[in-house]
Amino acid sequence: MGETRPFDRHVAETDVERVDRGVRTSRRDDLAVEEPLEIRVDGEALAVTMRTPGEDEELAAGFLAGESLIHGREDIVSVSPTADLAANVVEVTTVSGLRRDAGAERRFYLSSSCGVCGKGALEFIRQAAPPSEPQMISSAVVLAAPTRLREAQASFARTGGLHATALFTAEGDQVAVREDVGRHNAFDKAVGSLLLAGRFPLPGVFACLSGRASFELVQKASLAGLGGIVAVGAPSTLAVDLARERGMLLCGFVRGESFNVYSAAERLVS
Amino acid sequence: MGETRPFDRHVAETDVERVDRGVRTSRRDDLAVEEPLEIRVDGEALAVTMRTPGEDEELAAGFLAGESLIHGREDIVSVSPTADLAANVVEVTTVSGLRRDAGAERRFYLSSSCGVCGKGALEFIRQAAPPSEPQMISSAVVLAAPTRLREAQASFARTGGLHATALFTAEGDQVAVREDVGRHNAFDKAVGSLLLAGRFPLPGVFACLSGRASFELVQKASLAGLGGIVAVGAPSTLAVDLARERGMLLCGFVRGESFNVYSAAERLVS
Repeated sequence: MGETRPFDRHVAETDVERVDRGVRTSRRDDLAVEEPLEIRVDGEALAVTMRTPGEDEELAAGFLAGESLIHGREDIVSVSPTADLAANVVEVTTVSGLRRDAGAERRFYLSSSCGVCGKGALEFIRQAAPPSEPQMISSAVVLAAPTRLREAQASFARTGGLHATALFTAEGDQVAVREDVGRHNAFDKAVGSLLLAGRFPLPGVFACLSGRASFELVQKASLAGLGGIVAVGAPSTLAVDLARERGMLLCGFVRGESFNVYSAAERLVS
Repeated sequence: MGETRPFDRHVAETDVERVDRGVRTSRRDDLAVEEPLEIRVDGEALAVTMRTPGEDEELAAGFLAGESLIHGREDIVSVSPTADLAANVVEVTTVSGLRRDAGAERRFYLSSSCGVCGKGALEFIRQAAPPSEPQMISSAVVLAAPTRLREAQASFARTGGLHATALFTAEGDQVAVREDVGRHNAFDKAVGSLLLAGRFPLPGVFACLSGRASFELVQKASLAGLGGIVAVGAPSTLAVDLARERGMLLCGFVRGESFNVYSAAERLVS
C-alpha cells in the first residue's frame, strides 16, 4: 500500500482501503506524524520520546522544566536540533551549576547508550521481530470487536478514564480483556495474561484497542506475533509504516459499519 | 474536598462539584485509579509506569515481552508483588541466561536508583513544588476553553490522531496552543514555548487539555506554577489527590454547558 508521505511536519497522507457497509474502496487518508525524539542535554542522551515533529526546542524545554531540571529560560544556554534533522535529536546546553537536586536526579530515566552509539533515535527504539504470520479475518469480526470490547469495559463505563485492549481470535472469540489508565499497560496486561498461561507468541490472535494505534503498540503486537490490530482510533505514520513492513493487518477508525485498512488489506475477507 | 476512596482496585469514588448551566451541586463521582508501579527484574529496578492497580504480574510479563527481554512463560521463574502491596512494586525472577540481546540492552530505560533507595514507587515519581497561587476564574472561561482549543487544532481535524494543550489566562486569552501524538508532549511544548520566551513559572495561566488529566500532567502543571487545569476528559485518582494537595483548580469532563470540579472549587466564580 505504498509509503506514508509527509504533507507537513504534523500531517502525512497515505492510501487506505475504506470498508463501509461491505463496500471496499481506495481513498487517501491523513495521518498524524509520529517520530522518536532523543533529548540530549550537555552532550548526554537523557530521554527518547515518541512525538510529532516540530517545536522540538519547546518540547525539550518543557520536558526539562517538568522534570525540575531547569527553572526558567536563564538555565538554558542553547537548544536546537542537530544538523541532520532526520536523526531526530535535539541538543540542549545548560548553564553550569544546573539546579539539579538529589530528588530530581533520583527519578531521572536514562537511556543507556543511545547518545554514545551515534545512531538515530529510530534505531534506538526499533526491535527486530519476524513478519506477521498470514491469518485471514472477516470484516464482520473486525466490526464487532469494538462493541464487544466496550461491553467488557465495566470500569470505563463508570469513570470514562480507562483504556482497554481485547485479544480475540479470527473467529471472534475474545480470549482476554484488560483495562488500564495507560493504553500500553492495558495491552501489556492482556498479552501478559496469556503469556503467564503459557501462550506466547500468539499467532492467529488479534488485538482490539479502545484508542489510537501508536508505533509502540504495533511493535508490541509484532513482538507478540499477533495477526493484526483493530483500533477504534487513528493510527500514526510510524504505526502504519511498521505494520506494512511486518505484513500485519492494521485497521483504524473502526466505528459503526465502517473502518479503514492501513496495512495488509489482503488478509481481510468480506 | 476530602479524599478519593477506593471502591475496588480499578475504581475509586470522591466528592465533586458539578457545574451545569450555572447551577452548582455536590455529587459523588467515580474515578479511574492511577498509581505508579515499579517493575523490578532479578533484584534491579527496570522501569516505573503509571498504571491502574491489579493484574500487576500480567503487566510485568507483557512489558518484558514487549521489550524483547522474555520470549515466553519459560523465561520467568516467578513474578509477584512485594509483600507490602502499597509499595507498588512487582518483582520478576527470570531464568539465568535470559535472552537479552545487544539490541534490546541498548534501548533499556533504567531508573537510576529507585530499587536501591528502598522507597516506594510514588516517592520516586513525586517532585516538590510550591502550592498553586490563588487565582480566580469564571465558569464561562472554563466552558469556552475546549471550544477554542478545538478551533485551533488544525491537524487533529485532519487526522483524528493528535492531542493538544492550550494555555490561557483567567480572562480567557489563549497564549499558546500545541498539538502532538503524545498528550505529555503537547503540554511540554505549550509550556516550553513560553519558557523559551522568558515566561516561567506561569502564575495566572491555566491549561486546557484535549484529553484526560493524569498525575504526571498535574505535576507538570504544578511545577510550571499554573493556576489550574481544564480537561475535556476524566482525571485519575492521583491527579485529583495531587491537585488538592497543591490547591490547584482541576476541572474535568468540560463539555457543552457543564463540567466537574475536582479540586479548589473556591477558585471558581460563577
